Amino acid sequence: MDYGKKAIEYRKKNTVLRVISNSNILTKEDLSIFYTPGVAAVSKLIAEDKSKTPELTMKRNSVAVVTDGSAVLGLGNIGPEAALPVMEGKAMLFSQYGGIDAIPICLATQDTKEIIKTIKNIAPAFGGINLEDISAPRCFEIERKLQDIGIPVMHDDQHGTAVVVLAGLINALKVADKDWNGLKIVISGAGAAGTAITKIIWDHSKGKAEMIVLDSEGTLYHDRVEDIKNKHELVHITKNIEEGQLNDVIAGADVFIGVSVPNILTGQMVKKMNKKAIVFAMANPIPEIDPEEAKKAGALIVATGRSDYTNQLNNVLAFPGIFRGALDVRAERITSEMKTAASLALAGFISNPTSGKIIPSILDKGVTEIVAKAVAKAATQ
Amino acid sequence: MDYGKKAIEYRKKNTVLRVISNSNILTKEDLSIFYTPGVAAVSKLIAEDKSKTPELTMKRNSVAVVTDGSAVLGLGNIGPEAALPVMEGKAMLFSQYGGIDAIPICLATQDTKEIIKTIKNIAPAFGGINLEDISAPRCFEIERKLQDIGIPVMHDDQHGTAVVVLAGLINALKVADKDWNGLKIVISGAGAAGTAITKIIWDHSKGKAEMIVLDSEGTLYHDRVEDIKNKHELVHITKNIEEGQLNDVIAGADVFIGVSVPNILTGQMVKKMNKKAIVFAMANPIPEIDPEEAKKAGALIVATGRSDYTNQLNNVLAFPGIFRGALDVRAERITSEMKTAASLALAGFISNPTSGKIIPSILDKGVTEIVAKAVAKAATQ
Repeated sequence: MDYGKKAIEYRKKNTVLRVISNSNILTKEDLSIFYTPGVAAVSKLIAEDKSKTPELTMKRNSVAVVTDGSAVLGLGNIGPEAALPVMEGKAMLFSQYGGIDAIPICLATQDTKEIIKTIKNIAPAFGGINLEDISAPRCFEIERKLQDIGIPVMHDDQHGTAVVVLAGLINALKVADKDWNGLKIVISGAGAAGTAITKIIWDHSKGKAEMIVLDSEGTLYHDRVEDIKNKHELVHITKNIEEGQLNDVIAGADVFIGVSVPNILTGQMVKKMNKKAIVFAMANPIPEIDPEEAKKAGALIVATGRSDYTNQLNNVLAFPGIFRGALDVRAERITSEMKTAASLALAGFISNPTSGKIIPSILDKGVTEIVAKAVAKAATQ
Repeated sequence: MDYGKKAIEYRKKNTVLRVISNSNILTKEDLSIFYTPGVAAVSKLIAEDKSKTPELTMKRNSVAVVTDGSAVLGLGNIGPEAALPVMEGKAMLFSQYGGIDAIPICLATQDTKEIIKTIKNIAPAFGGINLEDISAPRCFEIERKLQDIGIPVMHDDQHGTAVVVLAGLINALKVADKDWNGLKIVISGAGAAGTAITKIIWDHSKGKAEMIVLDSEGTLYHDRVEDIKNKHELVHITKNIEEGQLNDVIAGADVFIGVSVPNILTGQMVKKMNKKAIVFAMANPIPEIDPEEAKKAGALIVATGRSDYTNQLNNVLAFPGIFRGALDVRAERITSEMKTAASLALAGFISNPTSGKIIPSILDKGVTEIVAKAVAKAATQ
């Protein structure tokens, strides 16, 4: 089926999101309750005590989905208008799976400081900020500088992806009967997703896993990336190695995680991996290796980002539940503990993981709820 | 009834606005149409031609309701959080009466330049900007500097009010059998609403009406207000007068329009007005004169902003239709012609105006539609 054609047809007839009044306003009394004079009493309460905003307004359930259009899907820097359909799709998923009122905000600036300022300026009506499709390395600074604005701010391309990958990996290790201790993981891609994946695995495995990260030029090592702040940070938490390419470092690896470009992992490379190899090939829409080929080359478990293969590692499994949980307890930020709790909840959703089922589908009933509950609990502990 | 209490109770149980997905996403196919990969085709179309954004996204039906919380209802400068319930109420009215997806944006800055910059930055996803409850004189500069951003930007406290007042006045003149020629109008209040009312009457009457505007210190005249830009502009289009107070200038007036403070117009003053006097006392919630008292003092027609008296001059009669009309034809700005067309449509809605019915109620079926049609027509002529 031509999904693109269907998408265009639908959107020409209907807008995909609606903002609706939750109550009809059909009488003078309705007007007096929902507008003046009734609304003044609500405003007065908040004017006296700003902390009452969530209990009296949309702030308890609203998330702004903010992009600058600089790194949209596989399409690149296509600008804020062209990014809008993607933000709308994301907002639909927030609504459908998290019951969250999500609002696309597409910014007409790609200046880091101005993005930060603009988001701070629009924050009062929102209970959370989901940063989306903002290119690295700007995404790191933007997210970091917004951590203290009093509401959760999360860059989903980093953490949504990382949470789902960790969940998948936890179950994959069970299936393969492997342990974090000395586990050799090769991560291809040192952008937003690769960085967050590396960090969450490091955190969760308490440094026991041995990780090697590569960008488009090869392995990250001190001398090459010392001037690239976010990449240099990764060198400190990964195995101390020298210059190398994927073909060199893949030998003996237990796990390959790709968040990079199509077709860079060959069957030959998979054959050089440790036995019961785990391959997460998440480049979209064309993975780092065709799943069939990876299996043929001996991989025990293969996962991708696509919905037409088994084991879809899709961050829709994470973001609705993470924000739902954070909103429910009015958390002020998304902590590492909350993200790890989301991964564990997702992994735990599958009681008996197999090589063909290491991760739930978003269409499985109750996924968001279980994630939300775990995140809320972690936020309040 | 205690509307404030009802408002608070409702809002503790429910949020008043919902952002919902217009289609369920319950299958893999749904996900593929509304999110990846389908959405990429939509983004590509817009990346090639930005002007296609409205036909493919929410931009064709979305309005941001933007405030800085500096002049909220009669409550004053209560800040962005306390302003949020009012913006939500406004968004409900946009939805209920205009079918418009309106989104509250409450700004954490009251700096004019930063407000302008922030609104420009968030504009890509919106088809219009409704400025709301921003104090004078900043509201004038903010609105003026946003006129060329390609979508309609209108400060409703100015123009929504002015459109409705002009509509009411057109019908009141019919009832009183008065003419614009030499009509003496006294306007109490030289803030956002007073300024726009003075200008729209001047425009529509082609300068035939004789207007006197007062602020809290008395009449506006050259020597006093030459350093106050927006007030000085009004001196040029009003009757050339000297220092005076309301009690002086009300003598012989045909029309009093109050957008100022409670109880400043006395029965004695109304008695000094011309016969068949028209009194629009719109201070909220307590008018410039009690309607009963004005009638007793001889006024032929009395209107207020309140829903519990006859002749309610409420800008909900204007803003949903103005934006509906502008969105329908993808107008790039709201022109004087569009505003006057809205006034004429509202006035024309009442086929036989009487002293007790010079203006429709928003609860009358079809009001918004008639305004929208007239505005759309004026925009495309």
